[in-house]
Amino acid sequence: MRPSSRRPDELRSVRITRQYTRHAEGSVLIEFGDTKVLCTASVEENVPPFLKGKGQGWVTAEYGMLPRSTNSRMRREAAQGKQSGRTQEIQRLIGRSLRSVVDMAALGERQIVIDCDVIQADGGTRTASITGAFVALTDAINGLIAAGKLSASPIREHVAAISVGIYKGAAVLDLDYPEDSDCETDMNVVMTSSGKFVEVQGTAEGDAFSREEMNTLLNLAEKGIQDLITMQEKALAL
Amino acid sequence: MRPSSRRPDELRSVRITRQYTRHAEGSVLIEFGDTKVLCTASVEENVPPFLKGKGQGWVTAEYGMLPRSTNSRMRREAAQGKQSGRTQEIQRLIGRSLRSVVDMAALGERQIVIDCDVIQADGGTRTASITGAFVALTDAINGLIAAGKLSASPIREHVAAISVGIYKGAAVLDLDYPEDSDCETDMNVVMTSSGKFVEVQGTAEGDAFSREEMNTLLNLAEKGIQDLITMQEKALAL
Amino acid sequence: MRPSSRRPDELRSVRITRQYTRHAEGSVLIEFGDTKVLCTASVEENVPPFLKGKGQGWVTAEYGMLPRSTNSRMRREAAQGKQSGRTQEIQRLIGRSLRSVVDMAALGERQIVIDCDVIQADGGTRTASITGAFVALTDAINGLIAAGKLSASPIREHVAAISVGIYKGAAVLDLDYPEDSDCETDMNVVMTSSGKFVEVQGTAEGDAFSREEMNTLLNLAEKGIQDLITMQEKALAL
Amino acid sequence: MRPSSRRPDELRSVRITRQYTRHAEGSVLIEFGDTKVLCTASVEENVPPFLKGKGQGWVTAEYGMLPRSTNSRMRREAAQGKQSGRTQEIQRLIGRSLRSVVDMAALGERQIVIDCDVIQADGGTRTASITGAFVALTDAINGLIAAGKLSASPIREHVAAISVGIYKGAAVLDLDYPEDSDCETDMNVVMTSSGKFVEVQGTAEGDAFSREEMNTLLNLAEKGIQDLITMQEKALAL
Amino acid sequence: MRPSSRRPDELRSVRITRQYTRHAEGSVLIEFGDTKVLCTASVEENVPPFLKGKGQGWVTAEYGMLPRSTNSRMRREAAQGKQSGRTQEIQRLIGRSLRSVVDMAALGERQIVIDCDVIQADGGTRTASITGAFVALTDAINGLIAAGKLSASPIREHVAAISVGIYKGAAVLDLDYPEDSDCETDMNVVMTSSGKFVEVQGTAEGDAFSREEMNTLLNLAEKGIQDLITMQEKALAL
Amino acid sequence: MRPSSRRPDELRSVRITRQYTRHAEGSVLIEFGDTKVLCTASVEENVPPFLKGKGQGWVTAEYGMLPRSTNSRMRREAAQGKQSGRTQEIQRLIGRSLRSVVDMAALGERQIVIDCDVIQADGGTRTASITGAFVALTDAINGLIAAGKLSASPIREHVAAISVGIYKGAAVLDLDYPEDSDCETDMNVVMTSSGKFVEVQGTAEGDAFSREEMNTLLNLAEKGIQDLITMQEKALAL
Repeated sequence: MRPSSRRPDELRSVRITRQYTRHAEGSVLIEFGDTKVLCTASVEENVPPFLKGKGQGWVTAEYGMLPRSTNSRMRREAAQGKQSGRTQEIQRLIGRSLRSVVDMAALGERQIVIDCDVIQADGGTRTASITGAFVALTDAINGLIAAGKLSASPIREHVAAISVGIYKGAAVLDLDYPEDSDCETDMNVVMTSSGKFVEVQGTAEGDAFSREEMNTLLNLAEKGIQDLITMQEKALAL
Repeated sequence: MRPSSRRPDELRSVRITRQYTRHAEGSVLIEFGDTKVLCTASVEENVPPFLKGKGQGWVTAEYGMLPRSTNSRMRREAAQGKQSGRTQEIQRLIGRSLRSVVDMAALGERQIVIDCDVIQADGGTRTASITGAFVALTDAINGLIAAGKLSASPIREHVAAISVGIYKGAAVLDLDYPEDSDCETDMNVVMTSSGKFVEVQGTAEGDAFSREEMNTLLNLAEKGIQDLITMQEKALAL
Repeated sequence: MRPSSRRPDELRSVRITRQYTRHAEGSVLIEFGDTKVLCTASVEENVPPFLKGKGQGWVTAEYGMLPRSTNSRMRREAAQGKQSGRTQEIQRLIGRSLRSVVDMAALGERQIVIDCDVIQADGGTRTASITGAFVALTDAINGLIAAGKLSASPIREHVAAISVGIYKGAAVLDLDYPEDSDCETDMNVVMTSSGKFVEVQGTAEGDAFSREEMNTLLNLAEKGIQDLITMQEKALAL
Repeated sequence: MRPSSRRPDELRSVRITRQYTRHAEGSVLIEFGDTKVLCTASVEENVPPFLKGKGQGWVTAEYGMLPRSTNSRMRREAAQGKQSGRTQEIQRLIGRSLRSVVDMAALGERQIVIDCDVIQADGGTRTASITGAFVALTDAINGLIAAGKLSASPIREHVAAISVGIYKGAAVLDLDYPEDSDCETDMNVVMTSSGKFVEVQGTAEGDAFSREEMNTLLNLAEKGIQDLITMQEKALAL
Repeated sequence: MRPSSRRPDELRSVRITRQYTRHAEGSVLIEFGDTKVLCTASVEENVPPFLKGKGQGWVTAEYGMLPRSTNSRMRREAAQGKQSGRTQEIQRLIGRSLRSVVDMAALGERQIVIDCDVIQADGGTRTASITGAFVALTDAINGLIAAGKLSASPIREHVAAISVGIYKGAAVLDLDYPEDSDCETDMNVVMTSSGKFVEVQGTAEGDAFSREEMNTLLNLAEKGIQDLITMQEKALAL
Repeated sequence: MRPSSRRPDELRSVRITRQYTRHAEGSVLIEFGDTKVLCTASVEENVPPFLKGKGQGWVTAEYGMLPRSTNSRMRREAAQGKQSGRTQEIQRLIGRSLRSVVDMAALGERQIVIDCDVIQADGGTRTASITGAFVALTDAINGLIAAGKLSASPIREHVAAISVGIYKGAAVLDLDYPEDSDCETDMNVVMTSSGKFVEVQGTAEGDAFSREEMNTLLNLAEKGIQDLITMQEKALAL
């Protein structure tokens, strides 16, 4: 029995709100249950130094949590003077995931910076970030097309992410915080609409996991990501 | 004529939403027109080192802007490894303003940490922060009373803040970004419900201002703050 | 009765020593009683990046306290690896105050960097810094004129600063440390020779202050600043 | 055809040298072909603050690369003033991997700090680090047993790690630098001697990978890790 | 011929002003010609962690240069966020030099912190710092004796420092900036009143130096330091 | 009697291994007894900003210790976010020592970066670093000659370094850690093959030292350095 009474293969209620704030070229509030992340996409007409003059673009990401997005207050990273290892790990993951579906040459010499800021946390902030950031990125790119700066979209296909894990011996989809903090194995899966993997990160928090358990988890994740991609499509169709 | 077509003494539309997020003891989204700030109040059952064993509490504040709360993306302070001078100036102002209406001995040896995070900026983020933070602080303290940890409120009176300034030669109330970035004089005023000043910070961005102009600005501010305090009272009465 | 036995509207003994050190284009030791600040003005033939090619100059300021300028030793900011919020607040104030009386286009594409370093502190270091820095700045600019790099002075008028406050219920001018650390309200006022305000920063350290008290304080400040400007003029006439 | 002419399922030549340096309680030089990592284990008779008084121990890890361990010189992280996101990601992975096979209560209130420093890099430094660090950790724990500080080993089973990937369309084991920098998919797998997974981190550098490809990669990794664990056992038997 | 027309073995004019500022337990302005350093000694009734409970005291030093103490403005270390290697080297040297003449057990469990801040630089700031700091330290210790906190002085003998070097082929004493920036060899010598060496730091800036040249330089330094110690004695006798 | 039973003028066993790692243009493992330092020389075809366009090259050095190169684990400087004063002092010394024997104009506009990383420490790491770095630098420069980028070597002569000190009243050569941590005077001497001094850094850790003692120490150092230079020559002849 899951704390939330969800079925093992049941996602939390997912909401995707576009144009959540007005300044960014893409601005999406994504909610996975009580987890709420604001994902913005900012277009910059330049590229990082290592890409100067190479005729291609870049997509990068930064991640942060508001200090009281969590149950007990976290110290503010700006006040501490550095980002934690966890923060850096997550923002690198978001950036790689989005780059995997963008044709950088077709994007042209410009950069899209994704900011994922967690307003409220209840587990799964990195998977919500990737899923929401894809929608914000799409909005920003559609804006470039509308403005005549791009003639076609450099986005090849959708990408979304979900967590799966083994909680009290059972494989479950989309762990919330009570599950996440008490599970044996936690796996984050990033997939494309063509059903291929971009990232698989499985970690045994308690006991190591078997190949069979891994297969069960991947099956759950595949199903969850298909549903998320359908929701992205619906949100973008509005 | 103001860019927003407001009258000189007209506030923007103000909205105060309590319990905006669920983890913090006080959580308020305050909107001054397009400026949106999330103010949370976190109760910690300890005090900073300099107050250990002195039988009194403390209220402090931190402030941040989401990178794309602004028209062009700001660099993330956590990634830069330090808070700007402007950020520190604002968070010190918020802390002082709130402490001015709290009886620290009556609060007991505990600390309330205020976080003001700007979701969307359109001028006046520091005055919106103070005004919203007061409501979050009140909710946190009422929670302590409800939990039997305090028998009476250590809050002596309300405090709120507004900006006034001289824009194209005219004194105006509650400057939005187009006014703020183009005004001659900008003044932030923090007042209590008893009509006294906690902070007055006037800065000539262009020409210096006369004593007479200052009086006109203070008159405008007094009126605006009375209205804000009425809105705080209504929000807290819900 | 003030601890120093001064009358409420009496400045401390003020001394302005020009050419205090020999390397800087302007170098002034200013003393407000026991408060001693070395203000230097350094001319740099370039401007910060945001002004490149805009045909105008810049004036900026940095502030520091020697570790044992104070009664008990302060930690050295260079050793701590960052400047405090208070330091940043003060140096931003000094910079803004000086810029308010300089015609940046007439200055040309060069920068004048003001350094205010507190040799000994007894309250009022920021107001002494502004008052002394104006003299150092004037010397630096006169040097540019003498060298034929400027044909006329870009300085429009004098600027000086003083603190006023409510100490034991009475409005007093130019607070020293014993007053400053025990006053109810502290206000720093920056004015020009034409009698207009550049900055007014009033803070209630204890009880909030009334409009009437504010007026009394501003009256005191006006008188004090007129006297300081006279002293600047005398010093510059030597 | 692999650049090194190895068969797809062939490990590089692996060497494990114990007692490589003399100060550390465990000191192992591990070589995966031209990749050489010095892994030391240091016993400290205290635990991090969050474990004080909880009757259990801790294992943590730090990772670094000598500036010229790589083909072109990397900037020294100590001189830059921070560890990169990659470094933090790797040291967190090493720490989690080792903790997964240690009974923290049986270790007692002490900490073992693992340092993995790359002397020469040719791909696979994180998997070599985990594999070598396990041997250093075992030596350190055996030292505690020999000294009578522990009566039995808190190590439950072996742990080792290997990379697998898809290089020019073929699944290969133990990627060296030329393969790693040019592969489509890179996966790091950490497994125990009982054949269970501790970590699986697969990343599509180029095209996303299919479920079938993933299965092929995991098969390769299982075989490689069994061989590595046999080599750990041989090295520890000397 | 030296730029200053001094004889090869001639010190610059040296002035030692005690009680230069009023807060510190020892406060000395030392001038070696145009080099002016403010040296303060602060008594703290605690010791650094590594000496807690060992029944002995400590003397340590920090060093800084005001940004415009030099011919062209140096960046402020507090603003840069770190002390340069040169700064750290000098403050370590000052601390070691002073500790060499203090009996730490006789000092008792307290720390004396020396701050040497360069007001104006013209070469030789580190040797002026050591020579002046000794006087400040003595004043601080005499204050402890006067207050009955120490019954006898833990200072065993005087210590002072001077630079010597080879400038245009000739050995010279007490290099000023024009000599220092153009010399072949620069040597800083720290000696006690008993004529023994505490530190000798010789550096060939240009050509390496011979044993014979070294002996000539040490002869010059011995003479210079004897004179400086006489001046310390005179200053302390006032 | 020395702890190692060496004669007072006896070096530890010295080994110089060239081409120790494969990426660097020069890579030398130098061993002074149990002290082992990896010295690499990296050629970079650019110069630091202050030398741009001046037609000359540069040699600089960085130094580090592996965390468990020492008897008890040192904190990793990269994790602490800064290099210690000791580290900076040593790397500046290594850089100056090597630059003293290189003709910078003859090197051309390129930089050679030396990295000295201590694998195992037993005293004398800075002198071993200098001695080994010279060999690595020579290899890197010979590589430039072999590649036709230089027609002749810009190295004027050899440079090597050794420590001498007064241990239990006797002058000894090449102090190991037990001697170094318990000696009265410690002196590091850097000399060239022509018998001239590049650096002499003598420090009284306990009692100050006399001119006579200094002479004895310099005699010992001269002999030791001659032997080290012979070993450098032999190593380079292989």
